[in-house]
Amino acid sequence: MILSCADLCRQLDLPPPTPPLPDLTGVATLAAAAPGDLCFVEALDQHGAIAASAAAVVLAPLDFPEPIPRNVIRVPKPREAFFTIAERFLPPPDYSGIHPDASIDPTAALGSQVTIAPGAVLAAGVSLGDGSVIGPGVYLGPCVEVGRHCVIHANVTVQRDTRIGDRCIIHSGARIGGDGFGYQWDGSGHRKVPQLGRVVIEDDCELGSNVCVDRATLGATTVGRGSKIDNLVQIAHNVRLGEHVIMVAQSGIAGSTRIGTGCIIAGQAAISDHLRIGDGARVGGQAGVTNDVAPGAAVNGTPARAVGRNLREQAALGRLPTLLKQVKRQQQLIATLESRLAQLEGSGDPEKGG
Amino acid sequence: MILSCADLCRQLDLPPPTPPLPDLTGVATLAAAAPGDLCFVEALDQHGAIAASAAAVVLAPLDFPEPIPRNVIRVPKPREAFFTIAERFLPPPDYSGIHPDASIDPTAALGSQVTIAPGAVLAAGVSLGDGSVIGPGVYLGPCVEVGRHCVIHANVTVQRDTRIGDRCIIHSGARIGGDGFGYQWDGSGHRKVPQLGRVVIEDDCELGSNVCVDRATLGATTVGRGSKIDNLVQIAHNVRLGEHVIMVAQSGIAGSTRIGTGCIIAGQAAISDHLRIGDGARVGGQAGVTNDVAPGAAVNGTPARAVGRNLREQAALGRLPTLLKQVKRQQQLIATLESRLAQLEGSGDPEKGG
Amino acid sequence: MILSCADLCRQLDLPPPTPPLPDLTGVATLAAAAPGDLCFVEALDQHGAIAASAAAVVLAPLDFPEPIPRNVIRVPKPREAFFTIAERFLPPPDYSGIHPDASIDPTAALGSQVTIAPGAVLAAGVSLGDGSVIGPGVYLGPCVEVGRHCVIHANVTVQRDTRIGDRCIIHSGARIGGDGFGYQWDGSGHRKVPQLGRVVIEDDCELGSNVCVDRATLGATTVGRGSKIDNLVQIAHNVRLGEHVIMVAQSGIAGSTRIGTGCIIAGQAAISDHLRIGDGARVGGQAGVTNDVAPGAAVNGTPARAVGRNLREQAALGRLPTLLKQVKRQQQLIATLESRLAQLEGSGDPEKGG
Repeated sequence: MILSCADLCRQLDLPPPTPPLPDLTGVATLAAAAPGDLCFVEALDQHGAIAASAAAVVLAPLDFPEPIPRNVIRVPKPREAFFTIAERFLPPPDYSGIHPDASIDPTAALGSQVTIAPGAVLAAGVSLGDGSVIGPGVYLGPCVEVGRHCVIHANVTVQRDTRIGDRCIIHSGARIGGDGFGYQWDGSGHRKVPQLGRVVIEDDCELGSNVCVDRATLGATTVGRGSKIDNLVQIAHNVRLGEHVIMVAQSGIAGSTRIGTGCIIAGQAAISDHLRIGDGARVGGQAGVTNDVAPGAAVNGTPARAVGRNLREQAALGRLPTLLKQVKRQQQLIATLESRLAQLEGSGDPEKGG
Repeated sequence: MILSCADLCRQLDLPPPTPPLPDLTGVATLAAAAPGDLCFVEALDQHGAIAASAAAVVLAPLDFPEPIPRNVIRVPKPREAFFTIAERFLPPPDYSGIHPDASIDPTAALGSQVTIAPGAVLAAGVSLGDGSVIGPGVYLGPCVEVGRHCVIHANVTVQRDTRIGDRCIIHSGARIGGDGFGYQWDGSGHRKVPQLGRVVIEDDCELGSNVCVDRATLGATTVGRGSKIDNLVQIAHNVRLGEHVIMVAQSGIAGSTRIGTGCIIAGQAAISDHLRIGDGARVGGQAGVTNDVAPGAAVNGTPARAVGRNLREQAALGRLPTLLKQVKRQQQLIATLESRLAQLEGSGDPEKGG
Repeated sequence: MILSCADLCRQLDLPPPTPPLPDLTGVATLAAAAPGDLCFVEALDQHGAIAASAAAVVLAPLDFPEPIPRNVIRVPKPREAFFTIAERFLPPPDYSGIHPDASIDPTAALGSQVTIAPGAVLAAGVSLGDGSVIGPGVYLGPCVEVGRHCVIHANVTVQRDTRIGDRCIIHSGARIGGDGFGYQWDGSGHRKVPQLGRVVIEDDCELGSNVCVDRATLGATTVGRGSKIDNLVQIAHNVRLGEHVIMVAQSGIAGSTRIGTGCIIAGQAAISDHLRIGDGARVGGQAGVTNDVAPGAAVNGTPARAVGRNLREQAALGRLPTLLKQVKRQQQLIATLESRLAQLEGSGDPEKGG
């Protein structure tokens, strides 16, 4: 991939550079740049770092002061501009076309320009949209629907009847559509409650490596449009995630809980079953949510409470060992006062003593 | 799958419906039902929901009041009856027979009516019981024994020498028989302690997606009969799980700990190594167990303590910020009393002052 | 595998046994030993256990007292000697050679004596060092470099450009090189920040089952030489793990955090992003680290604090419910003192009252 700076400027709505700048062959940090790399700076005092870098071109803030020791293109937001350009350098899919070492049921319906890597297995009735990429060792179960321009990375499992929207990215080892965890004690053992629902992943979602999303008992477990799920997250049966939800690594949601639009669930947080988390709520890292959370609220701790309250309680807890000593000393002071007072009462009012 | 209501009634020990009811083609919630679906209600005021549903037949409580807007079969426990019937609608395995795209060592011993999906790999000396189903991309290592009527879902790894009993269900991505996590510092690095034991999963167990059960250093890591393990659970080397244990998602047990019969370990709980958790004990969500737990006890919190004590402490913690202020005010009150008392002592007993 | 005791003694720098001892065919605990097995004892009162065992030979401490009911070899450190010998009984790889059911791109560069199991997929430009073993269903993406004498167990995914050093062990289901979790809100959705860096695993590392190590945004996520990572651990983008780090199961590290040499991160601990954890620091189980940790420090709790402080606070918390009652009683005592004092003041100094 070679990108001309004229092309870059066109994409960023900038005038072409004069004099012309060298072509770009990659992107990097200043410290790691090789010749040909595009870099960026945000702070205004990075002249030394720029001078020491092998970068071909550096994106810098509009007010970056002269003299500049290397080719610079000034832009209003260097970081954003950099990552916009960086997308151009993303590698192509690992494979292209349909590999002969894939195992594809003849009833599978494949869109145009799909990629299916070696070792992938597509069961009966699978439907795969235009331009989607299925990685090595992926299993798509019966009647799974995958939309257009999805990327399903290696060794993912998508079980029967799951529907995945357009432009989704599923990272390796994710498990979509396993049975929900439901049993009923029958007197001699835990009897399995049949899990007959499915999973629906709406458009523009990204699921991290080794994520688990269980199928519903009846109906659907749903991940709303634009939601982004980090690695090793657990989403139980019948959970409904709203749109644009963020779930950070190793967090988990128990059965039938509903998460509102735009919620942020931090790492290792847990949310109990059958709760409602309101739109825009934020759940802190390692929090354990055992009650509904109001829209826009921020909670933390186990059991989770309002962030401010949790902070006050944690701060107070830090003062507790000292408080224990203080109360003990007060006990002594009170006892002393008591005895001194009793003595005064005895001496100062002798007639009452009789 | 089409089920006649006469057949349904026979299975539920009910008389055949008169007049006859329509055949059933699926199961669903009232809200999601399509024509042909069986549904159920538990509450007695669901006439509106029933009327609005497309359900063919509804299982309702014995005392469900007339008039009923749709075909109803009355049963003592509608939910249980519903899920009993729902099992009839479970789909067949994704594949049947032995697929030519599986890689099976010639020394593997296969029972009758087994299913082996494309991409499955069976190593030397594997033994597979009658009616068991091996999903796509599953790996069964050397000398693995799988009992009868098991279902091992896609992309599971079962390492060398593991024994899995009858009627077990292993969900996709589970890792059984990886090395235990044991090292000894040798002065220059962590030297690996060889892990030469194995894993034994007894009959009627279910292991969730991406669960890890490590092999023992020597001997066996054991999951007792009828135990049910949710997604993303960690079971370390030499752990012994009793029968009918429930472990909820993302919980973990460290090395050599023994879990008694019928214990319930809630989500994200952690249990330290070399402990004994007594029969019927319950460990709360996100609890961190660092000591033995008595049979039947319920613990919570980190470090885990009795549930009642934890509740009292958490409630007390909520009052701590106020308490701090209160003690500070008492300090002032005591100082005031002290000075007033000193004044009284000085004035009321002047001869002593000299 | 048959091992003569003469050979065993040679390896342990001991004189050959006189009279000669039987050959060994395995290793086990005393309780589980079959004839032919080597066992060990550490305590000096294990004569009964030895007598009851079928062990062929027992390694015992130098001062183990006579009479000994079975063949014994005395060694200074029986446990260490035992596991040194136990390594001889580790099984060979599950497969040998390059299996025809593997899918190997013709541009892959394979060292001598490599093993590639059925169902493994090696993409273009992969480089595999001498003696390395690739398990069934493993995917090595484009330009992945694997060093010499590595073992990559079944169903592992190693994404594009990852570099793995020599003598590494990667357990089944590990995901190396998935995209880091980075987004920027663009007004209508979370826009993905391209993840263009890679993962570097240095020599002598071991990664557990279903571990996730994400690629860097730019540059590299690094696992330092000799580090050992347990199952289901999350290592986010741009994290740098020092050498000889231990991370226990289900722990996680957020983006860009640096972990010093020899740190120990216990189970289910979480470390926030952009922190520095000093060399030799220890993070307790389920701790939530939200600030830098000094070299050699030990922290615990959420939010994490010094272990001693956390212990004091937890102990104090246990006394808090009683403290609340005590302070309430003091309030009453103070009120009583106050009224008694007021009475004294009124009676004892009447002229002032006017």
